[in-house]
Amino acid sequence: MLATPNYIINGDFSQQITPLDRGFAYGDGIFRTMLMRNGLPVDWPLHYQKLVADCAVVGIVCPSAELLMSDFKQLFSMDEIEENRLGVAKIVITRGESYRGYKPPAITLPTRVVIKSAMPNYAVTLVEQGVELCICQLRLNHQPKLAGVKHLNRLENVLARAEWSSDAIFDGLMLDQSGCVIEGTMCNVFIRQGQQIITPDLSMCGVAGVTRQRIIGLAPSLGLQVKVETLTLEQLLSADEVVICNSLIGALQVTKIADQRWQNQLLANTLRALLLQ
Amino acid sequence: MLATPNYIINGDFSQQITPLDRGFAYGDGIFRTMLMRNGLPVDWPLHYQKLVADCAVVGIVCPSAELLMSDFKQLFSMDEIEENRLGVAKIVITRGESYRGYKPPAITLPTRVVIKSAMPNYAVTLVEQGVELCICQLRLNHQPKLAGVKHLNRLENVLARAEWSSDAIFDGLMLDQSGCVIEGTMCNVFIRQGQQIITPDLSMCGVAGVTRQRIIGLAPSLGLQVKVETLTLEQLLSADEVVICNSLIGALQVTKIADQRWQNQLLANTLRALLLQ
Repeated sequence: MLATPNYIINGDFSQQITPLDRGFAYGDGIFRTMLMRNGLPVDWPLHYQKLVADCAVVGIVCPSAELLMSDFKQLFSMDEIEENRLGVAKIVITRGESYRGYKPPAITLPTRVVIKSAMPNYAVTLVEQGVELCICQLRLNHQPKLAGVKHLNRLENVLARAEWSSDAIFDGLMLDQSGCVIEGTMCNVFIRQGQQIITPDLSMCGVAGVTRQRIIGLAPSLGLQVKVETLTLEQLLSADEVVICNSLIGALQVTKIADQRWQNQLLANTLRALLLQ
Repeated sequence: MLATPNYIINGDFSQQITPLDRGFAYGDGIFRTMLMRNGLPVDWPLHYQKLVADCAVVGIVCPSAELLMSDFKQLFSMDEIEENRLGVAKIVITRGESYRGYKPPAITLPTRVVIKSAMPNYAVTLVEQGVELCICQLRLNHQPKLAGVKHLNRLENVLARAEWSSDAIFDGLMLDQSGCVIEGTMCNVFIRQGQQIITPDLSMCGVAGVTRQRIIGLAPSLGLQVKVETLTLEQLLSADEVVICNSLIGALQVTKIADQRWQNQLLANTLRALLLQ
């Protein structure tokens, strides 16, 4: 078994997952990854709102914010808080345990896991020079009943992420079955065309992240009009700027995708500064 | 935690799953359910072949048949063997543990779980009178990279199975995004039209089960021509017979789907008898 990171299951450091947990058996649950600062989750109200919404889609009762806050307090020590260290928390909520069979039991006790990890050691050059993306071969399936939800059925992301090994590539762009741009394996995507920014519509597939939601809210203050709509690869490759975002990186400028290159521009840095406020 | 059934993880009764297991984190693994008779898995060569094939699709090294056989021997006691009892074994193979991130580690130790359950208490009437299916609202997504594989990303099955609660309905028929019949939530489907039987093509979605494979092989000995092709709901509802199959039920006659009824006929019983040989 791997050593660190630490985790806490249903508020108990000594508990483990059994193979009867429906999260293990069927991926029957949801999760979130968030930045921790001073021992507290950044953008917690939005993250918790999204947890509740995602749980509702799959019919799981979301644990209270108080329970999760108590988990954070147990996992992220005073030391870390005093040193103003950054960290990462991942929350997993599953439907809980059941006997064999897809049928969700009438009553289950959801399994609540919080995992603490170190903040990834991102190179400063990612911010200074922008990042390179590849275009994944794997095409995301269309499932409107689960689109937007950060559920535990993530084999598509795993297979897409396995397509490249070069450290020079920060993430892979995933298209859907009709060839439209949806997201990266671990980020959402925005393009800028003049004074307009576009992020893909996620009503058929993809994960609607909290940072994407925040950028949609912040953009008008930069004089940018936001559109959420179908985005073709051609549109993306001919955009003025491409920016990716998630809860850990904030926003990063994309300067290379396949043969297409962009000069490093200002949008990602401006957004990142706004996100930090 | 639930009491029985028993399980064994990596050959160890005391081991549990950690939340770092990629099966739990991403559904990054595969599974099989099989009938156990005299402490041994029925159709083991086919099940093991399918385990190896499914592992290969997602890039997991499948544990040896010897290791799994040793797990069976530890789980299914001599008592059960002597009493000629039927049981159920579920095998789960995941990519193993890793730190946060979709990227599959270069080297992982796969997690191997065998879970023992009691044989479901199927009513004799299921065989004598046939079974009723409903038609699920949820439409299966198209993902050719994973189609046919019994992987751990089964939220679609869970949501589809949650659509009905009546015990009178044995299973729900799942259609794909284009409205074609694919399978039940826990079975494969065949129709008979005269001397021809058709089972849906599973190159875009669905799970290609071992019993389906066996029926495809057995049908010619009954003078039936087998076709694996697109099957519309209209074709199915106007078929001479509809039969469902899986490793636990063998084959069952379908006598009702929505408003459509069929007289109980012979195909399922004939197939079940052949499957038992």
